[in-house]
Amino acid sequence: MTTHHFQPERYHTTIGWHEPVLRIAPGDTVVTTTVDAGGQDANEAQATPGGNPQTGPFFIEGAEPGDTLVVKIERITPNRPRGYATNVVSANVVDPEFVRELPPRRTVFWSVDVERGIVAAQDADGPLAKVQLPLAPMLGCFGVGPIGGQAISTATSAEHGGNMDYRAFAAGTTVYFPVFAPGALFHLGDGHATQGDGEIVGTGVEISCEVQFSVDLRKGKTIGWPRGETSDYIFTVGNARPLDQALQHATTEMIRWLCSDYGFDVETASSLLGQAVEYDVGNVFDPAYTMVCKVSKRVLAALS
Amino acid sequence: MTTHHFQPERYHTTIGWHEPVLRIAPGDTVVTTTVDAGGQDANEAQATPGGNPQTGPFFIEGAEPGDTLVVKIERITPNRPRGYATNVVSANVVDPEFVRELPPRRTVFWSVDVERGIVAAQDADGPLAKVQLPLAPMLGCFGVGPIGGQAISTATSAEHGGNMDYRAFAAGTTVYFPVFAPGALFHLGDGHATQGDGEIVGTGVEISCEVQFSVDLRKGKTIGWPRGETSDYIFTVGNARPLDQALQHATTEMIRWLCSDYGFDVETASSLLGQAVEYDVGNVFDPAYTMVCKVSKRVLAALS
Amino acid sequence: MTTHHFQPERYHTTIGWHEPVLRIAPGDTVVTTTVDAGGQDANEAQATPGGNPQTGPFFIEGAEPGDTLVVKIERITPNRPRGYATNVVSANVVDPEFVRELPPRRTVFWSVDVERGIVAAQDADGPLAKVQLPLAPMLGCFGVGPIGGQAISTATSAEHGGNMDYRAFAAGTTVYFPVFAPGALFHLGDGHATQGDGEIVGTGVEISCEVQFSVDLRKGKTIGWPRGETSDYIFTVGNARPLDQALQHATTEMIRWLCSDYGFDVETASSLLGQAVEYDVGNVFDPAYTMVCKVSKRVLAALS
Amino acid sequence: MTTHHFQPERYHTTIGWHEPVLRIAPGDTVVTTTVDAGGQDANEAQATPGGNPQTGPFFIEGAEPGDTLVVKIERITPNRPRGYATNVVSANVVDPEFVRELPPRRTVFWSVDVERGIVAAQDADGPLAKVQLPLAPMLGCFGVGPIGGQAISTATSAEHGGNMDYRAFAAGTTVYFPVFAPGALFHLGDGHATQGDGEIVGTGVEISCEVQFSVDLRKGKTIGWPRGETSDYIFTVGNARPLDQALQHATTEMIRWLCSDYGFDVETASSLLGQAVEYDVGNVFDPAYTMVCKVSKRVLAALS
Repeated sequence: MTTHHFQPERYHTTIGWHEPVLRIAPGDTVVTTTVDAGGQDANEAQATPGGNPQTGPFFIEGAEPGDTLVVKIERITPNRPRGYATNVVSANVVDPEFVRELPPRRTVFWSVDVERGIVAAQDADGPLAKVQLPLAPMLGCFGVGPIGGQAISTATSAEHGGNMDYRAFAAGTTVYFPVFAPGALFHLGDGHATQGDGEIVGTGVEISCEVQFSVDLRKGKTIGWPRGETSDYIFTVGNARPLDQALQHATTEMIRWLCSDYGFDVETASSLLGQAVEYDVGNVFDPAYTMVCKVSKRVLAALS
Repeated sequence: MTTHHFQPERYHTTIGWHEPVLRIAPGDTVVTTTVDAGGQDANEAQATPGGNPQTGPFFIEGAEPGDTLVVKIERITPNRPRGYATNVVSANVVDPEFVRELPPRRTVFWSVDVERGIVAAQDADGPLAKVQLPLAPMLGCFGVGPIGGQAISTATSAEHGGNMDYRAFAAGTTVYFPVFAPGALFHLGDGHATQGDGEIVGTGVEISCEVQFSVDLRKGKTIGWPRGETSDYIFTVGNARPLDQALQHATTEMIRWLCSDYGFDVETASSLLGQAVEYDVGNVFDPAYTMVCKVSKRVLAALS
Repeated sequence: MTTHHFQPERYHTTIGWHEPVLRIAPGDTVVTTTVDAGGQDANEAQATPGGNPQTGPFFIEGAEPGDTLVVKIERITPNRPRGYATNVVSANVVDPEFVRELPPRRTVFWSVDVERGIVAAQDADGPLAKVQLPLAPMLGCFGVGPIGGQAISTATSAEHGGNMDYRAFAAGTTVYFPVFAPGALFHLGDGHATQGDGEIVGTGVEISCEVQFSVDLRKGKTIGWPRGETSDYIFTVGNARPLDQALQHATTEMIRWLCSDYGFDVETASSLLGQAVEYDVGNVFDPAYTMVCKVSKRVLAALS
Repeated sequence: MTTHHFQPERYHTTIGWHEPVLRIAPGDTVVTTTVDAGGQDANEAQATPGGNPQTGPFFIEGAEPGDTLVVKIERITPNRPRGYATNVVSANVVDPEFVRELPPRRTVFWSVDVERGIVAAQDADGPLAKVQLPLAPMLGCFGVGPIGGQAISTATSAEHGGNMDYRAFAAGTTVYFPVFAPGALFHLGDGHATQGDGEIVGTGVEISCEVQFSVDLRKGKTIGWPRGETSDYIFTVGNARPLDQALQHATTEMIRWLCSDYGFDVETASSLLGQAVEYDVGNVFDPAYTMVCKVSKRVLAALS
């Protein structure tokens, strides 16, 4: 149950079977930092080239292919007062002909006030100047060593996690990853001070962070896709294009979960989901999109 | 400001430029009934062949192509104690290979207790027997006469509305439809006692209802897709496959709305949506899927 | 075995259960004309509003739901010396960001020399001025009364046919349509002097035509999607978005055909298709895309 | 202009920035062998674990990011008399509900007679027993080191090539790859004795081969996606899901090619493609699908 304080010195823009930076044990906690998506640190100094650079990988002792890695996100704190975003929706989230009406893309800055819990556009004109959003820090991109020794760009996502940009990957959430590599090889980065569903401008409010997480292991428990748990929901994540396919992955994974852990069979799980499932949209900007399938713990509570 | 009590005698399984059943004026209220998706009424008698039969169309005096029809859903009350659903997720919402594991499809019954506000599976075994869901009545399929004199099956959806199966089409919600036909020609039907996101078993808890709605007109106000408003959100609806395209329609429509009515331009609307948009999934069972793009009224309130 | 000479006086921009213009018998031949997609006739006079106006519908005596209508396209002859097209690829067939580089859309004219069999851009600059394409007349949009009494826009396609824009819908091809309406209700229009795969500029070389076709009936033979036959291939057509789904429809329909008429079962049909199937792309511009699944008659000839 | 005879000793199931097995110069020829998709060699001995194992990578002297690698496929000769395939179409290429009718998947063997040029199912019953297909050897999976140091599974494809399963990747075809890694790092494998479009059973007739290819380099010539050239066509390749997006990539790449090398601008290239483009379907089985955009050399010949 050690707490490790780890200061990264190098970063990866693929999630892969890279040399571990630290070996930790199930039960351990890590306090570390992440640079922003562009590779800048707490001082807005260029620490590494951009592209969602990842801190890690962390080698979890005892983790083997076929296990499940448990990551509890304990805290995500932006460690500087300014983040950045882009100013225009991505061409792939609007009607093709409407792309002709999009302005040029540029970077805009957002102030991030951790004390007051407020994120606001800097130098904004018009109605945007009046908008103040609640601080809602999250991890855009994190995951484990992918299937078959791959090294997959942090611009995308798959069974191993990656650039999922899901708002509920926030403090208090527990995430379950399928283990494909010895030691699991957990990477993390790409903090956002806040973000809308879908990351439709191609960024959240990108910012460097201090992050605290703890890990655990479910030996011999095999899952197919990332899963998670908040105070209110259990959820599964599918990463693919089109969104229809991401939804298929997430829904299938949820049925498997309900059948293996909650006493359902495919038919009763279907009946439950048909009348009670909820979906959230993660990233719809990257090569793979992200869809989340959720079931309320309130509904599940009735079962016990 | 008349209140019409209308008892339907015939129904349509297309939404089209059909002979109106009643002419009403902007400001009027209608109290009527809908049969269930299979064509059964309050007595579970077969009133008409199945396939989301629609009550209507109602001709709204003064409505012309290019206008916007406003429909306020005031009340949806199931008028019998039992609804039905199917028992197995649709083949198109799970991984293709997982379809081999799906059981045969059959109809299952759900009890609907309007007094206590509870919906529960009847004759359910195992964990499903313990699940009680809150009553949450909604309209699965409703809309106006489509573009260009089409008659479009109530199994699908498009710019005119149709089988969108979105949970927020419930009492208290105001819906805006683009008018394509003289008199708008409003149809409604396919009530659900409750439903999960996506209608992934191909049904909600299908039931006949008493429905009360009022209509209004925005002369000369032209919109591209259905829009709506609840106490907490404004939203836009896109209907298409894949979901990616439905999302493109809904997002583009929201940008147009923010620009025309809230003082944004494309760039500032992008910045707002990038950090504050939310998406809901409507139907993912039909030929056209439904995606909803939402902005919180709390965020918009800061603007005034 | 009558030959009817039919001169249309009105046209439809939906394919629906419209009043028939002529009743014909299985075995009969019809010689008629079609206006171009914009509604102009052999004199470039505006005969009717644009939008792929259809000649028909023709009522085929004895055709009932569940039958198959056989349409042999005997001749398609452009009846004027000039067609038109648009000048820019549709926004939906290029990378979303590339849409920013597309020029404005306008109409360009192409000369159509039926004698010499040549189609060439008029007033073209640069390399296009040197390009001469072979005349290859085809029907862009044709079909039968759709399922369930629908009236579906000629801008799209479904099980009933419609705007499929497949190059092999040319003279010599036999097309099989599922019959949904009494009398089948055959419509035709939208002739092209030539066209690339996909109709990616949103038009072929649009032109009015004289068309000769004959009809026949397969009583009690039920099919799911349009099928066809050329001298070299049998083929099936799927209409949907995304293309993946159109391909699913066409492939499933081909397996059913091989099983019902050629002595295969699903397993042997799979083995044959796996090593010998061919796909062609029809329309990728419309709300529904078109994919064609083909098997060479040379391969099938070995079976008999 | 050296000819290298290279006998592989180890293989990769990712295409990545792996240690080169041989350094070759532009103009050189390589004669080597590939194992089949399952890792078996000319003796049907298990040479390496399965999953499209790749021979290579070959380091091409002087190749740097931003260049184009030219690979001329000179010969692909199956080096044993028997290949294998699966017996059932993949669940993702048929209608979701039809998956319920698919038989279990198993391996079936096909005889491959290189002398007579014939491929035929072994132990086949019914009509399949009579089918003889022409030998048409091709490479299913080949490519160069991917963008950004990734190692991408040979089960899929992207800008670097990979598992594209396109029938025209055969002897006589020249392929152009964008170079992302120093030395380009060319990999090849996954030979098929023949294959239908789409590789819809998830395999061609999988077989080990002797392959001869030569390489060249276009210094400073940057392309976005694989391109190619046969005796009759120039073509571009897009790899993505859904097929719609693969088509977008391929079409955009073809427009860029016509503009940079053939004197067109976007408008005239659009007009040409609109009336003369052809599409072929590559793999529709893998995580990424493949669409090919072609222009006939006969059409282009008119330009010079």
